[in-house]
Amino acid sequence: MNYLGLNDLIKRALEEDVGYGDITTQSLVPPEQIARGIFTAKSPGIVAGIKVSQAVFAYMDPEVEFDVIKGDGDEIQPGDVIAIVRGKARILLTGERLALNFLQRLSGIASKTRKMVDMIKYSKAELLDTRKTTPGLRVLEKYAVGIGGARNHRFGLSDGVMIKDNHIKIVGSIQKAVSTARQKVPPTIKIEVEVETMEQLQEALESHADIIMLDNMNICEMIEAVNIVGGRALLEASGGINEANLSEVAKTGVDYISMGALTHAASSLDISFNIVEAD
Amino acid sequence: MNYLGLNDLIKRALEEDVGYGDITTQSLVPPEQIARGIFTAKSPGIVAGIKVSQAVFAYMDPEVEFDVIKGDGDEIQPGDVIAIVRGKARILLTGERLALNFLQRLSGIASKTRKMVDMIKYSKAELLDTRKTTPGLRVLEKYAVGIGGARNHRFGLSDGVMIKDNHIKIVGSIQKAVSTARQKVPPTIKIEVEVETMEQLQEALESHADIIMLDNMNICEMIEAVNIVGGRALLEASGGINEANLSEVAKTGVDYISMGALTHAASSLDISFNIVEAD
Amino acid sequence: MNYLGLNDLIKRALEEDVGYGDITTQSLVPPEQIARGIFTAKSPGIVAGIKVSQAVFAYMDPEVEFDVIKGDGDEIQPGDVIAIVRGKARILLTGERLALNFLQRLSGIASKTRKMVDMIKYSKAELLDTRKTTPGLRVLEKYAVGIGGARNHRFGLSDGVMIKDNHIKIVGSIQKAVSTARQKVPPTIKIEVEVETMEQLQEALESHADIIMLDNMNICEMIEAVNIVGGRALLEASGGINEANLSEVAKTGVDYISMGALTHAASSLDISFNIVEAD
Amino acid sequence: MNYLGLNDLIKRALEEDVGYGDITTQSLVPPEQIARGIFTAKSPGIVAGIKVSQAVFAYMDPEVEFDVIKGDGDEIQPGDVIAIVRGKARILLTGERLALNFLQRLSGIASKTRKMVDMIKYSKAELLDTRKTTPGLRVLEKYAVGIGGARNHRFGLSDGVMIKDNHIKIVGSIQKAVSTARQKVPPTIKIEVEVETMEQLQEALESHADIIMLDNMNICEMIEAVNIVGGRALLEASGGINEANLSEVAKTGVDYISMGALTHAASSLDISFNIVEAD
Amino acid sequence: MNYLGLNDLIKRALEEDVGYGDITTQSLVPPEQIARGIFTAKSPGIVAGIKVSQAVFAYMDPEVEFDVIKGDGDEIQPGDVIAIVRGKARILLTGERLALNFLQRLSGIASKTRKMVDMIKYSKAELLDTRKTTPGLRVLEKYAVGIGGARNHRFGLSDGVMIKDNHIKIVGSIQKAVSTARQKVPPTIKIEVEVETMEQLQEALESHADIIMLDNMNICEMIEAVNIVGGRALLEASGGINEANLSEVAKTGVDYISMGALTHAASSLDISFNIVEAD
Amino acid sequence: MNYLGLNDLIKRALEEDVGYGDITTQSLVPPEQIARGIFTAKSPGIVAGIKVSQAVFAYMDPEVEFDVIKGDGDEIQPGDVIAIVRGKARILLTGERLALNFLQRLSGIASKTRKMVDMIKYSKAELLDTRKTTPGLRVLEKYAVGIGGARNHRFGLSDGVMIKDNHIKIVGSIQKAVSTARQKVPPTIKIEVEVETMEQLQEALESHADIIMLDNMNICEMIEAVNIVGGRALLEASGGINEANLSEVAKTGVDYISMGALTHAASSLDISFNIVEAD
Repeated sequence: MNYLGLNDLIKRALEEDVGYGDITTQSLVPPEQIARGIFTAKSPGIVAGIKVSQAVFAYMDPEVEFDVIKGDGDEIQPGDVIAIVRGKARILLTGERLALNFLQRLSGIASKTRKMVDMIKYSKAELLDTRKTTPGLRVLEKYAVGIGGARNHRFGLSDGVMIKDNHIKIVGSIQKAVSTARQKVPPTIKIEVEVETMEQLQEALESHADIIMLDNMNICEMIEAVNIVGGRALLEASGGINEANLSEVAKTGVDYISMGALTHAASSLDISFNIVEAD
Repeated sequence: MNYLGLNDLIKRALEEDVGYGDITTQSLVPPEQIARGIFTAKSPGIVAGIKVSQAVFAYMDPEVEFDVIKGDGDEIQPGDVIAIVRGKARILLTGERLALNFLQRLSGIASKTRKMVDMIKYSKAELLDTRKTTPGLRVLEKYAVGIGGARNHRFGLSDGVMIKDNHIKIVGSIQKAVSTARQKVPPTIKIEVEVETMEQLQEALESHADIIMLDNMNICEMIEAVNIVGGRALLEASGGINEANLSEVAKTGVDYISMGALTHAASSLDISFNIVEAD
Repeated sequence: MNYLGLNDLIKRALEEDVGYGDITTQSLVPPEQIARGIFTAKSPGIVAGIKVSQAVFAYMDPEVEFDVIKGDGDEIQPGDVIAIVRGKARILLTGERLALNFLQRLSGIASKTRKMVDMIKYSKAELLDTRKTTPGLRVLEKYAVGIGGARNHRFGLSDGVMIKDNHIKIVGSIQKAVSTARQKVPPTIKIEVEVETMEQLQEALESHADIIMLDNMNICEMIEAVNIVGGRALLEASGGINEANLSEVAKTGVDYISMGALTHAASSLDISFNIVEAD
Repeated sequence: MNYLGLNDLIKRALEEDVGYGDITTQSLVPPEQIARGIFTAKSPGIVAGIKVSQAVFAYMDPEVEFDVIKGDGDEIQPGDVIAIVRGKARILLTGERLALNFLQRLSGIASKTRKMVDMIKYSKAELLDTRKTTPGLRVLEKYAVGIGGARNHRFGLSDGVMIKDNHIKIVGSIQKAVSTARQKVPPTIKIEVEVETMEQLQEALESHADIIMLDNMNICEMIEAVNIVGGRALLEASGGINEANLSEVAKTGVDYISMGALTHAASSLDISFNIVEAD
Repeated sequence: MNYLGLNDLIKRALEEDVGYGDITTQSLVPPEQIARGIFTAKSPGIVAGIKVSQAVFAYMDPEVEFDVIKGDGDEIQPGDVIAIVRGKARILLTGERLALNFLQRLSGIASKTRKMVDMIKYSKAELLDTRKTTPGLRVLEKYAVGIGGARNHRFGLSDGVMIKDNHIKIVGSIQKAVSTARQKVPPTIKIEVEVETMEQLQEALESHADIIMLDNMNICEMIEAVNIVGGRALLEASGGINEANLSEVAKTGVDYISMGALTHAASSLDISFNIVEAD
Repeated sequence: MNYLGLNDLIKRALEEDVGYGDITTQSLVPPEQIARGIFTAKSPGIVAGIKVSQAVFAYMDPEVEFDVIKGDGDEIQPGDVIAIVRGKARILLTGERLALNFLQRLSGIASKTRKMVDMIKYSKAELLDTRKTTPGLRVLEKYAVGIGGARNHRFGLSDGVMIKDNHIKIVGSIQKAVSTARQKVPPTIKIEVEVETMEQLQEALESHADIIMLDNMNICEMIEAVNIVGGRALLEASGGINEANLSEVAKTGVDYISMGALTHAASSLDISFNIVEAD
């Protein structure tokens, strides 16, 4: 993770949580008191974001020691120690909630992603995320998706072209939309078109779209689409895909399956932080 | 919602999504093209955050018209129109994803909360949220909890005293922790203590804690605690509370039940945005 | 002092003072020249904010050495050395004014507070500050009040409920205002009501307000109020309290006395900074 | 007042005061309730900063109406209405404290300045402020000094050269310091030198310093200095000047008198805000 | 131009220029004085950024009227009126320099670009910009390139893959670099490889790179490269391309020619701003 | 260079270039890979900004080693090594473009300035820069001008008074403008007036302006102006000065010559960065 914005994000989140100060800790804990705490898994899953938790404490006090036992991508079982932290007790107590909030959310996403990826690992289809991320956390959440084993779709509106139904309505035709986009956007970027019918698929193919997204198609339609395309474009299945139908979708032969639920419907993974020792 | 930080949050989130620019929309949609779009419910739930979605478009262009059909707190069914937007097509297309990301997440929280609140509405217990919120979104997520009918626990570390096990370990005793905190924090703030055993409960009572949190106790313990306390302090049940055991907990007679899952395990509510007309 | 916002504050204040650059120092002092300077008291008082001064230099150059001789809370007499600084002469000369502006203001507040606290130390009344602080410096100024020996009232509008005359006018009655607030604000927060008459006091008592603020009452009224309340609520005297009447107010038996002048009418304490040696 | 940074300052100060939200007002006052409030003088003085107070409310809600009755520079007597505000009751109640904190501090500075200026109005000496301002408020505080009738010294370290004792020590001589500075700083900027003795004064004169600051000199020394200089440089008296000796200093014939107390020892002027009507 | 960051950029640039305030204008121009000013071309070229200049004044005062006579992309000759502005004289005088600094630089880039584009308009080659832009102005400068008629290469490091010599050295081979990148980056992004020799070109072709950049090749090498590739990849010529050799490069048959000088060696176009009338 | 805002500038510029991440480097280069790179001159000139390039890498990773071979002000010839960098390959590859963009632009300005300064070194005239700098880079660009051997004019609108034609039009006369400004601006600041005719020059002289700027005068007029003034004010030649007429202007006897082209028409100096070794 080389995320330039991480410290800014941590700063804002700490300010959000700490407000005028952690009045409980400041009134009870001597400033020089040292303590040791551990992050422990309480349910099974995949770790993601442990460096973010480390960065939370490092932001507050560069002298906090943070030993990673289970790194990003590692499987954890209830009871597993994930990391051990040692530093001023005030720092540990004030920072623990934010460190957990990041770690639990990102691990929740990685865990859900891993489960989905495992369901389709024998197919050629690759699982992709979407832009349905929590405002402000996109880079982290997409990172967690990658840790879970899936691949990132475009990060935002400037690094990919996705021509949707709404764009086509305004431009008039897929053909015109694709050719216009191809002339205007940087040549380094592929053109993806969203289609809902076989007619649109045909038109997208004829426009030489690089990627075609099959929007909310059923399994039979997807199979038909794969046959029609015959490798002339990359195919992405999207919309209404869930744990129940994922492996069937993967078997249709599409190249990519994108799934918003990886980020917008992931629950936090249960992880605790406990002070084990106060020197 | 009077949230001073809202525009900053929207700005950062738009920058996150838009990056160098929405290259698809900018290359395809004429700058002066006007369009109309609608937000439509795709699953049942409670609306929360519609003003945030409105603020997203208003931030981008103050001239966008935004008619709220279903306001915060309203129940929605699949197919219900939630809001109608009219303005420059470029603004609608570039802003839609962020408007949806906020609206879906906040409505997801409100919907989950409403469901939980309904389960305990015949008890005196009030449902509370926690600090297990998404970093950067606390005020909004706690607002959504309120819309769902539950009540907010402290917002952060500066507006409430919560003496936890870790603090007690360092201070030495509940008695000492409570009396120290009471002398040091602003007199406007109550003192809450987390207890795990009946002995600790007794000690907390004797220290005149204002609120006592029963941490991870089972139903029988909670009932015993309620009896012991006999109204001399407010009681909050916390830890391991879920949909399955919530109503039982409510029947124990505790005053408050706090539940992190309201925010950390809520899925986004399914809502779509469609351009219905381009003038 | 664990103040997350301190470096931001220092940064803005330095930018305010330094502008495009300290043209005098940059044109006259060689970049590598090392110097030693001392902070010296020029009038008697209480030190507060020495860590802020230290942080000013540390922000500009982490290698500056800063030895604290008189720490926060220490009494100083004219001529006392408060701190000794050693580092690049440019840093010392450019940062000295800001370091002094913080130190003098905070020490001025602490000194004034200590004087007031000493006047009432034989009473049970505790001295409180208010929200009448300099915009942008609240956490620091309230910290200085604490160093001076008084206690902090709420920090801002989100960590305490204060129902004022204006609120009551709009809600209709104290009774209604208190019960409404109690249902809506986090249960961790006490309810304080401002009253001007004995009738209002009575009403506040009956509403079970946690704290009652006696607004601009005279000594006789305060005594009467203390008698009426008889310990059923905490009492705070406020408004028109100054050095002349403070000890009398303290003798009335109120629990708290709040005094805006601690922050809004404190003069800076006279402290100088001199280069004593240039290596 | 054309102060580009004003809204940023207001924003930060509001965030400081409001935190997570004004829980009292939000729980008690209906969002659409309209009210009218007035700012009233409670002690005599000079108004300064009324536009800042107006900007506080305008920042929160552009629809607030704000009628200025006593503008910046106007004299006020206890009971005088300074301004009338009309808008959402929530905005008025949440913003009042910040609006007052600015207005009271700036009016306090202007009032003190006016008093000092009046003491020397029959002399040719002009009163100047210093850089001893509250961190973050320099432009506003210097503005208030101007409203009070005094003149601003340099704003910061980049718009004036002030060669102090500390600089001279490092450079070796006044002569060398002045000539070096004159070659290096923008030619639009005058060179001022601080002197403590007649020898230094002589040296400064010979270096053709534009302005010479007489540091902590007594009245006799100042008179001697004025005679020696004979108009060949501008003279500024500084250090230890207070209400008691100010008019005597003015009579010595110096051109400028700088006085840090204008900003660092000014008390807030007493001004109240009251809701007079809720529609 | 839909540039979300524009107002932030203007704000910082105004603060940079205005500092503590425009002391000349504030001391001389009455606050309510209205004036009219015109932007006039003093040399021939292409306008770009007129909306940025408009935004500068709008940022300072939304009531300034700004009539665009020559819009972005229009040709201008010396003496042509580009825009007419009417508003408070203080705003016009304080903002003029920044408005000009943006307009002159962006018009300079557009003018240079147009000249280059005209030189190759009869070839199929498209002119591209690079990342050699002024730090902080990339979106604006790339916009100006587009106004001048050239096309944008990738905006930054996240919306395009460019495998350079340095990457290849580390990975070991072009083959491995291309296939690794193709597996890891979002599938919406093309893979571009920089080659310096025909051997590398061959290897890049075999790796199925989407775009191949011919780095610092001479005309003969470019022609050979075009023949070898035969349409199997897009070809970009880069390095050492200037006005003297541009048209020859275009005739080689490459698809794109990238030229850093469009942004890093463009001079500002000469444009003046004059007050023509003060009401 | 003691530029407080440097890290903020670097941060924004890095975010601008890196966006969501350097996808090429992150997909190809192992996180722990160490490399060494060198900055090499490709054309002759003067180095300026090498510390800025160093700060770019230090911002990204404080452990990067950066050896300066040619410091600011040093002459370079093609092939000269300017600096050697050693650190994580990812940091070097991601940061190189920004480090170069700063270094090339600042060195371009210094090189152009040095050339101009050399042309007038036998005259008494000093070369000055202007406010025609790139928005956001003023302090750096003015620093580069200084490195090139010229002197800075005022930095912005708050550290110098420049009464222009537009001001005079509004005030009514030069006499009135000068005397008004002299009474209002800080006494540390000189008054400069722009004149276009000998009549205006005469009026400026009689008003005791400190500096008089001869705007767009020809050589004969300048000579006449120098004679008229006879040392009673400093004279600055400005407008239409270029490489062709610069030395003639210098011979007229003016004190200063200001030249916008130093910053607004400087091309970047050609400098390359190459990885020479990957450990």
